Amino acid sequence: MPDRIWIEEVKKREGETVTLKGWLYNKRSSGKLHFLQVRDGTGLIQCVVFKGDVSPEVFERSGKVTQESAVEVCGVVRKDERSPLGFELGVTDLKVLHSAQDYPIGPKEHGVAFLMDHRHLWLRSSRQHAVLRVRHEVIRAVRDFFDGKGFTLLDAPIFTPNACEGTTTLFSTEYFDRRAYLTQSGQLYNEAGAMAFGKVYCFGPTFRAEKSKTRRHLTEFWMVEPEMAFCDLEENMDLAEEFVEFIVQRVLNHRSQELAYLKRDLDVLQKVRRPFPRISYDEAIDLLHRQGNDLPWGKDFGGDEETLISSAFDRPVMVHRYPARCKAFYMKNDPEKSDLSLCVDMLAPEGYGEIIGGGEREDDYDRLLAKIREQGLSPEIFTWYLDLRKYGSVPHSGFGLGIERAVAWICGLKHVRETIPFPRMMERLTP
Amino acid sequence: MPDRIWIEEVKKREGETVTLKGWLYNKRSSGKLHFLQVRDGTGLIQCVVFKGDVSPEVFERSGKVTQESAVEVCGVVRKDERSPLGFELGVTDLKVLHSAQDYPIGPKEHGVAFLMDHRHLWLRSSRQHAVLRVRHEVIRAVRDFFDGKGFTLLDAPIFTPNACEGTTTLFSTEYFDRRAYLTQSGQLYNEAGAMAFGKVYCFGPTFRAEKSKTRRHLTEFWMVEPEMAFCDLEENMDLAEEFVEFIVQRVLNHRSQELAYLKRDLDVLQKVRRPFPRISYDEAIDLLHRQGNDLPWGKDFGGDEETLISSAFDRPVMVHRYPARCKAFYMKNDPEKSDLSLCVDMLAPEGYGEIIGGGEREDDYDRLLAKIREQGLSPEIFTWYLDLRKYGSVPHSGFGLGIERAVAWICGLKHVRETIPFPRMMERLTP
Repeated sequence: MPDRIWIEEVKKREGETVTLKGWLYNKRSSGKLHFLQVRDGTGLIQCVVFKGDVSPEVFERSGKVTQESAVEVCGVVRKDERSPLGFELGVTDLKVLHSAQDYPIGPKEHGVAFLMDHRHLWLRSSRQHAVLRVRHEVIRAVRDFFDGKGFTLLDAPIFTPNACEGTTTLFSTEYFDRRAYLTQSGQLYNEAGAMAFGKVYCFGPTFRAEKSKTRRHLTEFWMVEPEMAFCDLEENMDLAEEFVEFIVQRVLNHRSQELAYLKRDLDVLQKVRRPFPRISYDEAIDLLHRQGNDLPWGKDFGGDEETLISSAFDRPVMVHRYPARCKAFYMKNDPEKSDLSLCVDMLAPEGYGEIIGGGEREDDYDRLLAKIREQGLSPEIFTWYLDLRKYGSVPHSGFGLGIERAVAWICGLKHVRETIPFPRMMERLTP
Repeated sequence: MPDRIWIEEVKKREGETVTLKGWLYNKRSSGKLHFLQVRDGTGLIQCVVFKGDVSPEVFERSGKVTQESAVEVCGVVRKDERSPLGFELGVTDLKVLHSAQDYPIGPKEHGVAFLMDHRHLWLRSSRQHAVLRVRHEVIRAVRDFFDGKGFTLLDAPIFTPNACEGTTTLFSTEYFDRRAYLTQSGQLYNEAGAMAFGKVYCFGPTFRAEKSKTRRHLTEFWMVEPEMAFCDLEENMDLAEEFVEFIVQRVLNHRSQELAYLKRDLDVLQKVRRPFPRISYDEAIDLLHRQGNDLPWGKDFGGDEETLISSAFDRPVMVHRYPARCKAFYMKNDPEKSDLSLCVDMLAPEGYGEIIGGGEREDDYDRLLAKIREQGLSPEIFTWYLDLRKYGSVPHSGFGLGIERAVAWICGLKHVRETIPFPRMMERLTP
């Protein structure tokens, strides 16, 4: 038998006879020819079965092979300018390894609920391949970016002992004789890490039990969170924009075929270049008022406001210094205006909303303790976190980027549900 | 002020005056000299304060600075052959940014419980830096290995709808109006991924609610799991040994300083070269009996047996074809001897036990359904998993490697608790 290769390798095998193993993706026939689209996960290739080239049995078998049947195909690799791959296979032999009957996902349109119920099979479609390859590229870019800058990966724990900011959006589990909560963010642990390793990041799944059925919400999503010692809000924004530029340009360079398949407007992504606009919350409020949105000063932005603000710019915009009361207790207040918080949100263009949230952390023991008390939280829970302000406290900052929202934006998808292999939402826990 | 740099950058700055920001790790004085060990997370440098070089205030301040105080140090980078870094700093100025009082972890020995209670501070020690940098390197190696071979990263879900193999070792949570379980393995989902992408891996935290207080158990641990279509047990073992060799050699090449700090016997690691010995369960039983262990055929190995078996070899050993009754329902039975399973465990040397478990999966619909029923499981739960055997089923295999056990072995640690930033064990959920 000729060498068995993956479809991704055919470009190195022009003119050679090879064996491919994969699944029938699509098929059409015309008289003496069957055109079989075969996929093996690394690519899709057109396999041309010409009646004159094969035995009568192989020709007949090729005409009968059903969608998603597993096949082994032998043939000669030939240049084919019209195909995205650049090559096709001139078939000399074909075996059916496993015949699939009535594959549920046909070429016709299916409803989203049906596709989600068949997610384990839907993953075989070219569209899902494109989205999930972009996801993989984003994740590689994230790691390369931080590893290349000398950050240490410090995985934050998933099980946390306390419901730091209320239990309403937390999942919890019995943990032997007590309760544990599933993390919503690794940030507090990251701060301990930054004091130990200077520059750290964590990257793992996080959980929110929000009763939201919007296109932006998953109960389980992946988040990367860098945290840096000796870093203020400005330097934090510098890093955030460099980071987002890096990811977007990486995907443009490495996944252009996937973006093309998704019909993504590349111009929009090509504009994602530093510097990104930076406006204060106050300036954002002015902008909203000029656009006819009358959100009063002091309120946090919702989806409508985020869309209005980001529409004013051709690249991601960073909004900094929100009213402190909109933000979590650990944010440092602006020394120049103490009702403001030294925080930043990055809003993606085209209405994709917040993709990054971060800021400078409160590094003073007494002020942090006062804020914990003000918010009615129990200081005992935060003993270890307060310790970080007792022993060598320094200015430090960080942010979090949600992978699924970033992938949805980069791919130009309406809903985050396709950006993760097996999405989990309020109404969706299967397959 | 001179350029502020990270300690990792001093080697490019010989002879220059620079500013470092960090924390005081250790200190000794002798007359006109203070030797301050300063760490900033990227390295540790000796800062020499000579009375003749600085103002009286700076000299006095340098003598009083306490452990883990945050400092800013200016000085000239000088070659120093005796230090692991190769350089020291000739101090010209020193500021104390934040003075730490009574840092709890002193140079004296502390008990493990005390250190674990202060894990957020213990992370600052050189030993923890060494272990967690090796962990980071292992994780990078894992991703580079699979990315380099064309695998697609396909994150498996953490929330799963069913307790597939009994609830005794599962954590569960209320999931809106139903129950969800925390994953113990991404394998079943990976199989759907392999049929879609050919070669996939997932890499994330997994959870076991085992009531075990051994040195090998965590309730939350990270696992990488590759899964390949068109792959049998032999090819699976080929990949597993190439993978483990790759990781170990990478750490040897990139983290030799950390391994030296941990006093790891490098000879043992250098021997981790392919091919690894492969023995059947039957041969392993013979080996045990010859060593005086009388485990009867058909029983799974415990820690004692694993240690005895692995001690017979100078590199990891792969034990394949266990009795089918020891293994999970999804394992394919050996067609040559149907009471055996086409599975493999890799045992690390020096008594570190199983670091890899895997095998070839049952790919026949009827046989899989029968096995599900035999084990008293409900076929309805596995409808989607059975679908994979209805539509283009092909031979496929995979394995899982637990990161913490691998790091413990590579670092030569007795207990897995130091191999993860914030370990979670039966009796440990804090900080």
